[in-house]
Amino acid sequence: MMHGGNIFEFAKSCRCSEKEVIDFSSNINPRTPVHSFKDVNISPYAEPTYEVLHEKIASVYKLESSQIALYNGASSAIFSLFEVLKPKISYLYAPLYGEYERAASLHSKDIELCNRFEDIYKIPPKKSLVVFVNPSTPDGRYYDLKKLFAIWKKQKCRVLIDESFLAFSSKKSIRKLISKNKNLYVVQSLSKIYGCAGIRIGALFSHYENIEALQKRQVAWGLSSLDVSFMIGALSDEKHLKKSSRWMEKRKVELEKILHDSGLFSKIYDSSSNFILAKLSTLDAQTLQQKLISHKILIRNCSSFDFLDGSYVRFALKDKRSHKKLKKALNALT
Amino acid sequence: MMHGGNIFEFAKSCRCSEKEVIDFSSNINPRTPVHSFKDVNISPYAEPTYEVLHEKIASVYKLESSQIALYNGASSAIFSLFEVLKPKISYLYAPLYGEYERAASLHSKDIELCNRFEDIYKIPPKKSLVVFVNPSTPDGRYYDLKKLFAIWKKQKCRVLIDESFLAFSSKKSIRKLISKNKNLYVVQSLSKIYGCAGIRIGALFSHYENIEALQKRQVAWGLSSLDVSFMIGALSDEKHLKKSSRWMEKRKVELEKILHDSGLFSKIYDSSSNFILAKLSTLDAQTLQQKLISHKILIRNCSSFDFLDGSYVRFALKDKRSHKKLKKALNALT
Repeated sequence: MMHGGNIFEFAKSCRCSEKEVIDFSSNINPRTPVHSFKDVNISPYAEPTYEVLHEKIASVYKLESSQIALYNGASSAIFSLFEVLKPKISYLYAPLYGEYERAASLHSKDIELCNRFEDIYKIPPKKSLVVFVNPSTPDGRYYDLKKLFAIWKKQKCRVLIDESFLAFSSKKSIRKLISKNKNLYVVQSLSKIYGCAGIRIGALFSHYENIEALQKRQVAWGLSSLDVSFMIGALSDEKHLKKSSRWMEKRKVELEKILHDSGLFSKIYDSSSNFILAKLSTLDAQTLQQKLISHKILIRNCSSFDFLDGSYVRFALKDKRSHKKLKKALNALT
Repeated sequence: MMHGGNIFEFAKSCRCSEKEVIDFSSNINPRTPVHSFKDVNISPYAEPTYEVLHEKIASVYKLESSQIALYNGASSAIFSLFEVLKPKISYLYAPLYGEYERAASLHSKDIELCNRFEDIYKIPPKKSLVVFVNPSTPDGRYYDLKKLFAIWKKQKCRVLIDESFLAFSSKKSIRKLISKNKNLYVVQSLSKIYGCAGIRIGALFSHYENIEALQKRQVAWGLSSLDVSFMIGALSDEKHLKKSSRWMEKRKVELEKILHDSGLFSKIYDSSSNFILAKLSTLDAQTLQQKLISHKILIRNCSSFDFLDGSYVRFALKDKRSHKKLKKALNALT
């Protein structure tokens, strides 16, 4: 059984089209920005520095263009950063997005995991690269990082903060700190909040000198002209971010109630993002996944996350109609 | 003055729109395949193995899916391969596409250049990674590699052949050899022959065990869903390759005559691809570039290529109308 994320494989097992699948496993914004996809000339090579897109992101995220490096997706940004920094020790606050362990295992000599549920203030090794996803996956908890930053500074760590899920909440970003802190890197996926996983554009924010060094190692013409054009349009919908977070707040209350009322869970985690982690009381994740197949509902089995076991499942926030279907399916189980 | 390739910068210097520029510097097929760009759902994550695109490429290039690794552009394929192979010595048959030297300088301890115009059968160091672009850039010469393969085998070299420009000719590919030769890698850009530089999909062909090893290190979801959909459509135009190479043959005769009749060149190179290298007799490349600005014509100054100097320029094949404009512009110079 898969962990989730591949609706095509899931659709096969349901014997239905992937369009019929209700995918609670993928934490992508179901709301997409309002914009028209302009006519794009894909024949010539694109303007090689992607200046217009840099400026657009700079204006939305209130940074300078020189503080932004663009990659074909946030995963690509992560892999490239690890490749360049080649950290001797990677210190990962876990559980977290699986690609961090893959990137670290390729480019670090040692990986240490910190169980942030139990021992968050454990001291990381000197000069390690620390990675913190905020809000975190798969639980959606937002952390005030003040005390951690003091520890990291003392330990002379380089710091990578992943804020890919921050825009779903009204919480504060730390990206402003990059102009003063040369040890800080911030990863920002654009696919999640703009509801377009198929568009491969991710950003890395850092001090302009770090960005310069990263860009020297970048592949020429790494981004699709179609994706660049799409994303410039998406970022131009100025109301999208606010509208999304308001909409998400409502959907979260709705989904929390459904999970609570189902009586299936012994714990439902407080989330500052667009997904909810829940611990099953008697069923295990795999069984629940299987029972939902006939409803064409795909959920995330969290057993592959560090420090979680087969009793954890994650639900992404979806629209009202999908929530109703989930409610019906869960209630049919009890 | 730029080398060419950035029509946006050039358009600024001409004070015109980039659509008005006649770009002889970029060796992209001006003919694009006939196909409709189908409705693409960019919201969910794509099917993570891009199976349909693999199969489509396998069928067009007469290989197995398992012999193909896909990257967001050929440059990305090249960088990734160097990163994985980490060759102690990279032996580059020069002049060649500039990204090879960049990739080698990042991931090799030493780089040796072989001047293929003068000393092609020089013995490369044992166990080096040899890189050969066939047909070569910027001259378009196609080489029979038989004798070289014998040398490479004797020297236990790993071999990377770039066939990105092969489809413009009727010459034979060596990609069939990958099933028997585990030391062989073949790079195939799709942007050039399919006339879509803005679409970022490039392929690497090799023994399936090599492909497996490469894929283990690949970033998840590296390709744009829009690009994948576009390329599946493009590859479905079964007549495109034949039509293009026939059309190119005609345009080549036309352009060769224009260059010859202009009287500006002391040598015009025989090309098996979609561009022609020429050596200026009295003018230098930079002067010619500047004189063509008022005609909104951009050409490739080849002084940045190894073993070439400021007297070499390259012209990509364009349509009849563009050729006529070039003829007029060149004749106005003499």
